[in-house]
Amino acid sequence: MTSQQKFFLGVDGGGSKCRVLLTDEQGTALGEGISGPANPNQGLDLAINSILCATEQALKDAGLSSDHIDQLYAGVGLAGVNLPKYRRMLEQWDHPFAQMHITTDLEIACLGAHDGEDGAVIISGTGSVGMARVDGEQHAFGGYGFSVGDQGSGAWIGHQAVINSLLALDGLRPVSELVPRLLSHTQCTDAQQLAEKMANLPPSAYARLAPLVIEQAESQQDAIALDILMSAADYINQLSRKLLTYHPPRLAMIGGLATPLHPWLAEDVKPHIKAAIHSPEVGAILFVKQKNAISENL
Amino acid sequence: MTSQQKFFLGVDGGGSKCRVLLTDEQGTALGEGISGPANPNQGLDLAINSILCATEQALKDAGLSSDHIDQLYAGVGLAGVNLPKYRRMLEQWDHPFAQMHITTDLEIACLGAHDGEDGAVIISGTGSVGMARVDGEQHAFGGYGFSVGDQGSGAWIGHQAVINSLLALDGLRPVSELVPRLLSHTQCTDAQQLAEKMANLPPSAYARLAPLVIEQAESQQDAIALDILMSAADYINQLSRKLLTYHPPRLAMIGGLATPLHPWLAEDVKPHIKAAIHSPEVGAILFVKQKNAISENL
Repeated sequence: MTSQQKFFLGVDGGGSKCRVLLTDEQGTALGEGISGPANPNQGLDLAINSILCATEQALKDAGLSSDHIDQLYAGVGLAGVNLPKYRRMLEQWDHPFAQMHITTDLEIACLGAHDGEDGAVIISGTGSVGMARVDGEQHAFGGYGFSVGDQGSGAWIGHQAVINSLLALDGLRPVSELVPRLLSHTQCTDAQQLAEKMANLPPSAYARLAPLVIEQAESQQDAIALDILMSAADYINQLSRKLLTYHPPRLAMIGGLATPLHPWLAEDVKPHIKAAIHSPEVGAILFVKQKNAISENL
Repeated sequence: MTSQQKFFLGVDGGGSKCRVLLTDEQGTALGEGISGPANPNQGLDLAINSILCATEQALKDAGLSSDHIDQLYAGVGLAGVNLPKYRRMLEQWDHPFAQMHITTDLEIACLGAHDGEDGAVIISGTGSVGMARVDGEQHAFGGYGFSVGDQGSGAWIGHQAVINSLLALDGLRPVSELVPRLLSHTQCTDAQQLAEKMANLPPSAYARLAPLVIEQAESQQDAIALDILMSAADYINQLSRKLLTYHPPRLAMIGGLATPLHPWLAEDVKPHIKAAIHSPEVGAILFVKQKNAISENL
């Protein structure tokens, strides 16, 4: 193994976790790593720390020392960098890699889901966003973040559960079983405590409440949970229909909420949704290989 | 004027501003002051600074020197102190007054609105909250803060305007005139910029967008603005009906949104809503006088 040997690193960083994949030049997977939140809107240092931490793990997993970090050609797809402010912050990072190319988690997800070919993708994880990549153009929708968007995401579902539980505890809508379950889960005894505990928590904390809502909705008898999931599905339906207007050859839905939300989607949308071919980390490697090929041909 | 002379200070502190009224023992108004946000959930130092700044003004307005601050019997009603965490923070303040008694902005508003008698009050300003004070008991609803509640408030209306404008700019709901007006008002040219600019702004920044929504709704032709105001009114309707179940002799609605929201309220609710007799600052003075009378009688 010479110092000239190239490795490829694919980074997929979201609001809850960061996953990396390390391959050789031929694309053989050598190692993997996983760490915490890597959305720069939750803090640049936190995002950088998560990327480096997962990279260290992947090197170790591949039986390589930390010194090899300067041989890594990194494709980095991150949530949040659709906002120019956060993209600039990341680009100013004095990174330790041989090369680093940054794009959105959305583009690497789309590249991975369709093996580098044209297609559309919806991500519903902690946040939500959609993109069609067709004929060399990208059309992105949503992804505006927890405080003003991200409808149909895990954080949005958890947030709606809190908002509606507070309304129910005030007697302004009927209480359903979700309400005592949410209080018990958050170790609160009343609305006041719940509001105090949840105020200003990060999106990941709200996303952790989503499984409760899904479970309650699946029982088919919890009106609050059903309302929330129907609203979440309604947004994903609208987003899907918008993406389909660009005639992508394929439409994939990924992220932690993709599988649980699928049964709630409209009948005109469901048949369009296909499985992703590869992970976003593989998409990030396809991305950096494209960038690297371009720079080598210059 | 001896050092024994007592003055009364009524403080009404909300998410956007803090108003104080200074009176003598007979209740004659001597001076007034106004300053910035005094909701401790926006920062304890900011709240304390606003209270002191408005107090200084009131002393000056009354022709009294700053030294008289230790002769003030202060009744302090603040938004946010319904949450025990913020109440405790305020109570630990080493204040400069002769006495300070803290309660919610809600209780002083209710005391002021009904001249110290039983009644109910809804506040819709930057935040929203309701209370019935009947037969020695208080029943409060809402007031859970911008991040998980405050439906029907100025901040909520502004927040909904941003959320719905982003949906419209994504083509997921029809654009109305509110959308270009909001972009122009916030000096943004697209959804991305709007999301970036508004992310994590304080409630007061969102509340400043409410007048745009009201103006657009009043034109009767802006579907987004109409939807938002109808939803805001729906919450206030429900809150009113809840408060009326306690049979308060009077129900008052105060705060910056009270007048603009009134025409949108339901026909069964409107006739119940009466004018407030006094301001919350007067209510704060009624409150500290009650507390002072109790302590003098101990």
